[in-house]
Parts: sequence; structure tokens; C-alpha cells
Amino acid sequence: MLKFTDILEARDRLNGVAHRTPVFTSRQFNEEAGCEVFFKAENLQRAGAFKFRGAYNKIASMTDDERSKGVLAFSSGNHAQATALAARIFGIPAVIVMPQDAPGIKVAATRGYGAEVIFYDRYSESREETGDRLCRERGLALVPPFDDYKIMAGQGTAALELMEEVPDLDILAAPCSGCGLLAGCAVTATHINPSIRIFGVEPEAGNDTWLSFQKGEVVSIPVPKTIADGLQTPAPGKLTFPIVKQLVESILLVSDDELIETMRFILERMKILTEPSGAAAAAAVRHRKTDFSGARVGIILSGGNVDLGKLAGYLMQSGE
Amino acid sequence: MLKFTDILEARDRLNGVAHRTPVFTSRQFNEEAGCEVFFKAENLQRAGAFKFRGAYNKIASMTDDERSKGVLAFSSGNHAQATALAARIFGIPAVIVMPQDAPGIKVAATRGYGAEVIFYDRYSESREETGDRLCRERGLALVPPFDDYKIMAGQGTAALELMEEVPDLDILAAPCSGCGLLAGCAVTATHINPSIRIFGVEPEAGNDTWLSFQKGEVVSIPVPKTIADGLQTPAPGKLTFPIVKQLVESILLVSDDELIETMRFILERMKILTEPSGAAAAAAVRHRKTDFSGARVGIILSGGNVDLGKLAGYLMQSGE
Repeated sequence: MLKFTDILEARDRLNGVAHRTPVFTSRQFNEEAGCEVFFKAENLQRAGAFKFRGAYNKIASMTDDERSKGVLAFSSGNHAQATALAARIFGIPAVIVMPQDAPGIKVAATRGYGAEVIFYDRYSESREETGDRLCRERGLALVPPFDDYKIMAGQGTAALELMEEVPDLDILAAPCSGCGLLAGCAVTATHINPSIRIFGVEPEAGNDTWLSFQKGEVVSIPVPKTIADGLQTPAPGKLTFPIVKQLVESILLVSDDELIETMRFILERMKILTEPSGAAAAAAVRHRKTDFSGARVGIILSGGNVDLGKLAGYLMQSGE
Repeated sequence: MLKFTDILEARDRLNGVAHRTPVFTSRQFNEEAGCEVFFKAENLQRAGAFKFRGAYNKIASMTDDERSKGVLAFSSGNHAQATALAARIFGIPAVIVMPQDAPGIKVAATRGYGAEVIFYDRYSESREETGDRLCRERGLALVPPFDDYKIMAGQGTAALELMEEVPDLDILAAPCSGCGLLAGCAVTATHINPSIRIFGVEPEAGNDTWLSFQKGEVVSIPVPKTIADGLQTPAPGKLTFPIVKQLVESILLVSDDELIETMRFILERMKILTEPSGAAAAAAVRHRKTDFSGARVGIILSGGNVDLGKLAGYLMQSGE
């Protein structure tokens, strides 16, 4: 089980390495949402997302021997860049396994952090087999994206910093995909304040955690179609979900249009860039997916990695 | 003359009212520019630009009697919103004089801060006469955009905060239009470190300060055509320019394309939104308008108020 001391240890490992990201407020957002919101800007984290916290904590927790030959991650998204950057800081090789049809910009960004990208054909190969073979052949250590206590502990430090800055939150809301961020933040927040209410947020189309929550056990769905490309994991994790089930009040769902509207607000009024996934918790509060009236609400803006061409499209869409 | 103690007094007035904006760094920016850059993010200041510092300091320096009937500013840009917000904080009326053809979004934003917007016809009326008449009739106090020591002192607090955080800068670069920001920051920075080198930056098309600098006296140009709408003042101020002439090493010029390229970098990699004017100093460093090699360079990102429709255009332009 994930303990609060795991998060404190992660904080010590991340100290001076991860950014202590700023916490923003917006009077207009508060007026429109009817509550008082504190935005933890993990879109300004190193490599552009909270993922760096977990990946670095995982690698830093390995013995010198375990990590000496390098690390491996499966990801075409923020976990890829986070693992690549964390490995570079340790001066060890990183191998990132991506599907052959991964967007060029993500491949380039990952290589930009010094990682080796290895492609697999998602129609004829299993990425797990590809990864397992590479780990065996090269002695690489796996850095899982979410279903690992060191990963969760790293992600939980985002909530720790937020609550150090704003101690008297009534509610904490975070996006959820594999639920590493949500589980880590839930353990942190409920330890500091046992009466805090925790909400996870996911896209309507990618409602695997919502379904799992209803059923009380992990439910898988086909890879969902949503612009929130960071929230397309088809199921919460085996280790993360029991924590979510125990500590989270409920899972809220937002539409792609609500994500875009919220990204636009955050960009225009708060002057910071979130990716669609990164704006999910803010969208749930802004579009009043449950009654937050008058509450002090902490929100994790989880990431800001979005292709500028796609962003231009979002800005022109529903633009008035 | 503007004294360092004026800036310290402004800091006290702004304490707890203005945001102490964060200072960002970007490894990639440094690698590409060949120097070490510290970005003071005034795009995250209240009302989206450094202008709030000066406007608030000006109003806070008035006697209760002077400001009791309200304040007036001429502006269709960031100074309008800054003055409106500062007046609202004091609970006094603000009248903003704008041309009839000012963009609707700027009118709406200014009204959103509670100001009364009064239009003048720029073809048949003088804005000064309109403003003077309103000040006389209503007993309003003028809040000038730059040519005023209280305004300059407020803007100088941006450099003060930056140098408290990063004491050993070799260079400080700021955009210049009327030169209130540049003059205030130059007095601050050279007081703290007499050997620091100060640079102003303006668009190639709006090179009035560059021309004035060459000639050694204030030179006016026709309103320049540039996307940097915050830098279209046709001449530096009578009070600001002597300070610039004395303390600034030189004025650097950047093209509109360089502004867009730099805005795009800052948005994509640093996840924060600057307006074209706001990216000017960063553009001069990034595009190596003089030799900054190896230096520790402080940059003021001066504002982030940009229409999202226009932004979409900038993102699609020269997109690769």
C-alpha cells in the first residue's frame, strides 16, 4: 500500500530537481465557477507535465546497479519525455518504446531529451513483448507509467506542495487515466486533511475509471476517442484503483468541448498553456459537474504538451 | 529625476497587491541563444502585463482628495486594463478614453474591470482635449501611461524582484515603447549593480527610441505598423528618454517574424503566453541582436494580452 512516508521520501528525492511549480488563482474563474480555485501548474513542470515527478522518483529509488544499464518505458506521451529527462539527469541510457505511427513531434521531443526511441508495429507486435525482450537483452529497468508505488509517490508530491501553500482546501480534483496522479494525490491530501473531498476527472468517452468506480473493480474499455490524449489509458491500474476506490468521492466526466473551452480560458485569462488532458479537472469545476459552491478547491493542471498546430485548431473552434 | 528610493517606495505600495511574478528558465532557450536567461514573467502579472505596477503606484501615491473623484487614462491597450483594475482596488471610478475603432475585445476587457469607456473620434477630435475636458468637468486625476516618475517607479519594481531572485545578472533587457518600463528597470538595475549592461528592444518598424538614441534627443515617427501593438508609441517620453540615454547601452531591433517565432517558442516550450510586444526582449536575445555569449541575462516578458483568434494565426504562420 502507498504510505504518506513514501510521498515524503519522494519529496526529498525531487528536492532541487523537479520544479516547485507555482499555484495560480483567477478571480474570473472563481466568479464563474462559484468557488475559490487554486491551480497547481504542473504544465510548468520539467518536460511539461507532472509525469517527471514519478519517473524521477522511480529511477532515483533504484540501486546504482539496477539502473546502471539504463531504463525503459512504453509511452508515446508525457511519460516518455519524463523518463527520458530523468534518465539524462542520472546519466544513464533511456529506451522508449513507441508505436510506429506515433506523432513525429513526440518522437522528436523524446529524442531531444537524449532517449533512444524503438518502434513496434502495433498490428503485428506486442509492446510488452518488445519491451520485455529489450529489458532482458540489455539489462534495462522498467519505469512503469502509473501502476507502481514509487511512481504514485512521486506524483503525490504535487498535492503535497499545493497543500503546503494552501493548507485549508475543502476539495482536491485531479485528472485520471491510469490513476497514478489521482492515487498519489489522494493519499497525500487525506493524510494531511482527513476530511478533504477528492475527485477524479476523465473524458466522457474515456470513462474507464468511472465505470470501474461504479462496479467496484477494474473495468477496461477500448482505447477511447477523445482529444485528451493523455487520458486514453483503457483501464485504471491494479495498484492504483484500490486506492482510488477507498479515498476518492467520485469520478466526474467532461466532454471534449468543455476541455477546449477550459483550455481557452486558461490560456486567454491566465496566460498559461495546458493540453486537453491537463485542463480536465479545471473543466469539471468550471462546468459544475458537481456542487462545489463556496468551496476552496485545489486543482492539478497536469500538463501542457500540445502541438501548436492542433492548438491553433482549438483556438479557432467555437471561438466566440 | 527618478531615484532608487522611488522604486523602493513603489515596492512597498505594491506589496500584497501586485503579483510577485515567477522567474522562469529554459535549458533549450539557453542552448540556442548561447547565454543563460532568466525570464521575469510579467505576462502573469495582474491584468496581464507589467503596466499594473505603474498604474497602481501612481494612484496609490495620490492623496485621498486627488483620487476621490476618480482617474482617467488614454489607452486602448494594457495601460487601460491596468488603470481600470487599480482604480477598482481603490474603489474609485476609472474613465478610459479610447478611439471609436478600438478592438471590441479590449473595450470589453476594460469594462470587465469596471471602468467607463469613453470614445473619441480620432479623425475629428483630439484625445487630449477629450481627456482634459473630462478631467476638468468631473475632477478626474490623470494616470499617464509612461512619462511620469510614479509610473516609472512602479515598472522598476519588476527589475527589483528579478534581481532579488537572480542577483548576479550581467545584462538586463526590456521592451521599450514610451520607455517607462525600460527607464524604471534601468534605474533599479544600475543602482543594485553599477556594471550591469542594459538593453532596450523595439520592433524594426517602430524604431523611434533607436532613432532618438542615435540622435541624442527625442525623435517622433508616424504610428508604426507592427504586430507588437504594445510598442506603437511614436516617441519615447520627455522624462523617460534622458534616463534611457544615460543608462542604456543600446537599443536593439527585432522583426515581426522574430517576434512570432519567439512567442511560439515560449508558448510551446515554456507553456506561457506572451503577446508580440511581450516577447520582444526575448526575441533580441534569441536572435542574437548583439553578443550576449556566456552572459547571465535577465529579460522582462512584459505582457500576455493577445486575442486568441490572432494567436491562432501566429501559430499557423511559419509553422515548421
